[in-house]
Amino acid sequence: MFSQLEQKASGFSLRLEHALDAMKWNQDGLIPVIAQQHDSKEVLMLAWMNRAALEETLRSGHMCYWSRSRQAFWKKGESSGQVQKLVSLSLDCDADTLLAQVNQTGPACHTGRRACFYWRFDGQQVVIDNDPLINPNELYGKP
Amino acid sequence: MFSQLEQKASGFSLRLEHALDAMKWNQDGLIPVIAQQHDSKEVLMLAWMNRAALEETLRSGHMCYWSRSRQAFWKKGESSGQVQKLVSLSLDCDADTLLAQVNQTGPACHTGRRACFYWRFDGQQVVIDNDPLINPNELYGKP
Repeated sequence: MFSQLEQKASGFSLRLEHALDAMKWNQDGLIPVIAQQHDSKEVLMLAWMNRAALEETLRSGHMCYWSRSRQAFWKKGESSGQVQKLVSLSLDCDADTLLAQVNQTGPACHTGRRACFYWRFDGQQVVIDNDPLINPNELYGKP
Repeated sequence: MFSQLEQKASGFSLRLEHALDAMKWNQDGLIPVIAQQHDSKEVLMLAWMNRAALEETLRSGHMCYWSRSRQAFWKKGESSGQVQKLVSLSLDCDADTLLAQVNQTGPACHTGRRACFYWRFDGQQVVIDNDPLINPNELYGKP
């Protein structure tokens, strides 16, 4: 459906339910979500949502993902306290990727770094180029 | 392997081959790649690479993806002329997503828009909030 609408002009709209039905969820019912800090424009992380997680995110205004490793809802910041508020959300041309503008408190990354993309390709090496803001043991209450 | 190295400090490095071997390619041998315009920080698109596409990107300095719909290499800009040069490339903590800083000529989106994320969630609607820079028929040489 989205491909048939791609030449529509700004302001053209679909009903939310209709869009959710037509989005391209993958074989596991998931869609990748890019989280970008709304003001600095830093890309913080990529995670996945199923339809229920997306509906919860839109309802609550807080990012709720689906954790593929834990097979559970993952309300961002629930265990670490580093919450991620939704500022605005967009869907791409193919309806198979979301881009969320967010407001992230502290580190977005479970390692304690602000963002997850800290391994930089540099010639024949891949180099860590960023240090944690907080010791992750403090984030997750480990002794 | 990457999870065991996450507390290493800035400057720690791995050999490229070693990193490529240890990255988490999905069941189809692919990894998602976020392309961000390096100066404006606009997120342009998300596409996928296999290992050969990543190696070609690093070799050539031009973004080369794997088209899932066409099951073929996709040298960005090859048919449209709207090339996407690699500025820098980073891998995330879980080694399952890439973030590319790029320099995009003209539109990144096949619809002729600068970026692919032009459907904005707005209450009970999803609304187009961006118009093409160029008619896509001009980009792809259709009459």
